[in-house]
Amino acid sequence: MSPFGTALPVIQAPMAGVQGARLAIAVCEAGGLGSLPAAMLSPDALRRELLAIRAATDRRFNINFFCHQAPSPDAARETQWRQRLSPYLAEFGIDPASIGAGPGRQPFNDELADVIAEFEPPIVSFHFGLPTPELVARVKRWGAQVWSSATTVEEARWLQAQGADAVIAQGLEAGGHRGHFLSADLSRQLGLFALLPQIRAAVSVPVIAAGGIADAAGVRAALALGAQAAQVGSAYLLSDEADTSAIHRGALQGPAAAHTALTHLFTGRPARSIVNRLMRELGPLSEPVPAFPLATGAIAPLRAAAEARGLGDFSPLWAGQNVSRCSAGSAAEITRSLAP
Amino acid sequence: MSPFGTALPVIQAPMAGVQGARLAIAVCEAGGLGSLPAAMLSPDALRRELLAIRAATDRRFNINFFCHQAPSPDAARETQWRQRLSPYLAEFGIDPASIGAGPGRQPFNDELADVIAEFEPPIVSFHFGLPTPELVARVKRWGAQVWSSATTVEEARWLQAQGADAVIAQGLEAGGHRGHFLSADLSRQLGLFALLPQIRAAVSVPVIAAGGIADAAGVRAALALGAQAAQVGSAYLLSDEADTSAIHRGALQGPAAAHTALTHLFTGRPARSIVNRLMRELGPLSEPVPAFPLATGAIAPLRAAAEARGLGDFSPLWAGQNVSRCSAGSAAEITRSLAP
Repeated sequence: MSPFGTALPVIQAPMAGVQGARLAIAVCEAGGLGSLPAAMLSPDALRRELLAIRAATDRRFNINFFCHQAPSPDAARETQWRQRLSPYLAEFGIDPASIGAGPGRQPFNDELADVIAEFEPPIVSFHFGLPTPELVARVKRWGAQVWSSATTVEEARWLQAQGADAVIAQGLEAGGHRGHFLSADLSRQLGLFALLPQIRAAVSVPVIAAGGIADAAGVRAALALGAQAAQVGSAYLLSDEADTSAIHRGALQGPAAAHTALTHLFTGRPARSIVNRLMRELGPLSEPVPAFPLATGAIAPLRAAAEARGLGDFSPLWAGQNVSRCSAGSAAEITRSLAP
Repeated sequence: MSPFGTALPVIQAPMAGVQGARLAIAVCEAGGLGSLPAAMLSPDALRRELLAIRAATDRRFNINFFCHQAPSPDAARETQWRQRLSPYLAEFGIDPASIGAGPGRQPFNDELADVIAEFEPPIVSFHFGLPTPELVARVKRWGAQVWSSATTVEEARWLQAQGADAVIAQGLEAGGHRGHFLSADLSRQLGLFALLPQIRAAVSVPVIAAGGIADAAGVRAALALGAQAAQVGSAYLLSDEADTSAIHRGALQGPAAAHTALTHLFTGRPARSIVNRLMRELGPLSEPVPAFPLATGAIAPLRAAAEARGLGDFSPLWAGQNVSRCSAGSAAEITRSLAP
């Protein structure tokens, strides 16, 4: 029994945009901790997903929210961004006037708390820090554990001081969004071998290791370094129960997957993606882009038009640094293969 | 017995400029594999160090060389670099005309091979790839194992194909110079959790893990991920037998050590150092600097002048990302504490 109430010390990383309840349920039923990413769900969609989980499993699960500051739109920055993308918009025949807001990412708030309160999920995890103390207290009132990601020792200490019940040490290897929230200086981000033992020594709450862990040996190594469980994301991207697109699956299984980089081009915040045309041509971090998640707006129609042609040139191809041996199969098989 | 003929699967990382035979001997005698960094030694100094090792221990040891291409001086780049440093030179009253070549780094060559041939060291390791096939063959003729660092899976495969007997998987966490040699794109550099298992799967020669390993738990984690030994650098920087300067020791033990970054300012190649004034003010990687190791020339008098005032503002403060619990003591104690 893991300290988090599951048979295996394995947590399926919440991956907004590429999975929902189906993957979470399969992992829970296989003995791991399944996670539902809520960052891109409307309140109604969130309720549907939670109903699906409750109908399918009575196992413990984790629900994950982003808790960024909602951005103030910056017209000049937005204009500059669309200008920078204008050659691509022209290439795909997209009218810049048609650009909408793009898929949003809602930070955790009272309305979302109302929805989950009906279900009292046992674990509520956050990315980009924590929501207000009032929201944290509200979640804790039904007995939920509150977790969040730390990318530095300082963030781990801050999270513990604010009442986090566990800290996820997110190594630089991890795919998707970096969880940093105290400093935007990416040179402060650490590889998991360095981050995990230092966080372990700095806090007394349980520590979960994330980043580059893709097999049982990785889970064993994380436990050796003091983690109480390993959070695994990329290894589930090819699973039957993930909603990963065909383009994303193709990229993960091809030679391009060997080269990932942090980029803010897709959302406005640094996240690890397989390097594609947009990242190569603009530079992954060199453009001034609208604040998270507003950069997504002007990218969305490009992504759709390119994907319609079978191209992932403008798609966020989230992936960690260790996907070369990820394989397709059921999430249950993948979960059991991670048993240390 | 480790596969490399030592009692412990622990290799003391060669650290040019901060240690010599004394540290290597102490580690060998304690059951690890001591390393002599030769990159900054003249042939005469190299002979003296090898004589010292032979006089003190009959244990196996490792001698390490750089094998970069010797650079062609670029007068325009050099002028630009001195121009960029001119406010600092003025601050310390240094006449730009007095700037010399600085401490050199000689790539492995026939003259150095002549010196080591007298001693037939059992292990000869390289950084930045491998020397010419002729030099590799020459070293192998006396039975030496040839090792080199890989920072990507591609580099590991290349090294094995060129005859390397072991590959050192150098994670992004490691202090000092990055060993990359097939691509200078730093986004291709991987954290050890992702690099090590992928190299392990890609080559059949033994793999040594390096980067962020500072205690026995780190060694155990590296072995769990398939390494046959762990190479440890920073944990020896405070040892009695290292020649680490007082300024460097002070930085390693202070709060500044929590923030390291890759910088090419000190030598011309990216290397991990504790962030200091020069790195903060110029940006660690933003200036066009003379090719490795020529950037060192104009930095040397600044470093000397600042160090004379007790400041590490212009010193390369090499350190990995995991030094927060490194402690002083004898190298023997440190080596024994690393036993998995």
